[in-house]
Amino acid sequence: MDGKVVIQREIPTQVRMGVEHVIDRIKKVVHEMTQEVEKDFTIKAMGIGMPGQIDVKQGIFIEGPNMPGWHCVPLVEKLEGQTEFRVIMDNDANVAALGEAVFGAGQGATELLMVTLGTGVGGGLILHGKVYRGATDVGGEFGHTIIQYDGPVCACGRKGCIEAFIGTRGILNRLQEKLASGKDSPLQKMEFNRITPRDISRAAGEGDQIALEVLRDTGYYLGVAMASVVNLLNLEKIVVGGGVARAGDLILKPARESLDQHVLEVSGKAVQVVGAKLGGNAGFIGAARLAMLMNDNKD
Amino acid sequence: MDGKVVIQREIPTQVRMGVEHVIDRIKKVVHEMTQEVEKDFTIKAMGIGMPGQIDVKQGIFIEGPNMPGWHCVPLVEKLEGQTEFRVIMDNDANVAALGEAVFGAGQGATELLMVTLGTGVGGGLILHGKVYRGATDVGGEFGHTIIQYDGPVCACGRKGCIEAFIGTRGILNRLQEKLASGKDSPLQKMEFNRITPRDISRAAGEGDQIALEVLRDTGYYLGVAMASVVNLLNLEKIVVGGGVARAGDLILKPARESLDQHVLEVSGKAVQVVGAKLGGNAGFIGAARLAMLMNDNKD
Repeated sequence: MDGKVVIQREIPTQVRMGVEHVIDRIKKVVHEMTQEVEKDFTIKAMGIGMPGQIDVKQGIFIEGPNMPGWHCVPLVEKLEGQTEFRVIMDNDANVAALGEAVFGAGQGATELLMVTLGTGVGGGLILHGKVYRGATDVGGEFGHTIIQYDGPVCACGRKGCIEAFIGTRGILNRLQEKLASGKDSPLQKMEFNRITPRDISRAAGEGDQIALEVLRDTGYYLGVAMASVVNLLNLEKIVVGGGVARAGDLILKPARESLDQHVLEVSGKAVQVVGAKLGGNAGFIGAARLAMLMNDNKD
Repeated sequence: MDGKVVIQREIPTQVRMGVEHVIDRIKKVVHEMTQEVEKDFTIKAMGIGMPGQIDVKQGIFIEGPNMPGWHCVPLVEKLEGQTEFRVIMDNDANVAALGEAVFGAGQGATELLMVTLGTGVGGGLILHGKVYRGATDVGGEFGHTIIQYDGPVCACGRKGCIEAFIGTRGILNRLQEKLASGKDSPLQKMEFNRITPRDISRAAGEGDQIALEVLRDTGYYLGVAMASVVNLLNLEKIVVGGGVARAGDLILKPARESLDQHVLEVSGKAVQVVGAKLGGNAGFIGAARLAMLMNDNKD
């Protein structure tokens, strides 16, 4: 009820072993965990965050790039049949947003966007304090906010999405251009294909000018996309998480400056940009919250 | 209750005569209209749409570019003191969106954006069937969705907003560039400063290539901004109204094509772009609806 984690287990998905195998593993670990806590707690509902497109009402996992073989799997039904409690499933970005909104960096805000910076750029929207999913449960795709209609090509195949600028590939492309100038940098000594955003953050932390510029530009582009969204949604908070966001203020400070520069004044005054607090736990804490909410308004 | 207009009056605002003068005129016309219909109807609530920033909860008109002298006017209180019914006020774009959503081109959709193409580019959002206003009631500013972060300067002072491309000034700027090519067009014979979007629509309707290109580009840019919003909000309908939208499919067809080209497939499938149906009546019909809703859940 208060976002405190009572018990936690981590197991590999083993997605290549097939859908039923994965579901059996989920059932098994849920059963074990339930037994471990049943002395002190009664489990009333279970929340799940999954990486892909979900039909929340029907409890179906439709598809997702990291879940090969999973097409229209009625996961909620399959799990509810085995357990004594109700199950709800949502997209991983949505539950992470809910987790941060209720128990993390977004506390106090009812209108919130969570942005996840990683290989891709993820998004989850909380409006009026609830997960906003849109007409067919596929909303929240902040990563495909277009900031330059004739810009670089994105992984989605379209042009100028914010992900094309600040997804890992976009960041590395800009780094490569800057390194080509020949300017001195510890990153010049690394094999380019092995450089990760973490290496850039580290070099920036040590004062490397090229790395600092790359992160500053990353924040700048992020701020542009945030401004579009804030103009439309008049948000209270934007929570930024994900691996790349570990660079912290090296990205968030220029992002805030760029947001201020690109947003309408009245909306700009109302919004705060903050780093995520719950890290990798945001997802399951938010999923648990979703389960609580479902249990409160039994429909 | 069914969106039918029973009685309608139009009076000039006379905003330069001062706040109290305008309020007195509103009171007078409301009194006259109430008397005319009181035989057949009991007025229970009044809805107002105003061009500017509104604090809906407190009933205060904060400010607006077309309302000089109006700063933090408690209009709802001033009108409620004089009448026997409750009053609610919202932004004109919001009430127009609600009108179209409930009784116009948006019927059946609960997730909807209304775009108004005129001197500026207005926006009103309906989410879960209700007006979405955001944290401080200033949301819905679709006109300042950025489609090119280093693009042309907008009236808001920032760069690359959709309004800078397809507000009247943006449209005329592109026309001017094309006319400079010297290519034959009936618009070449007109004094440039007198050309309006309506002249462009007329020329396009007559097959003028330059005018057709200008409208096609207008639709193209509009589709880019729509794609960003649809990716984020997974909308069911976008209703396009306003004077410039009278060009109809000359703008809407390229807008739909551009939207399809720039939007993620799953969200693109779920959304329809349609022309507005209620014209200038959308605002007061939506304001009346807002009043009905307020009266239903007396808070």
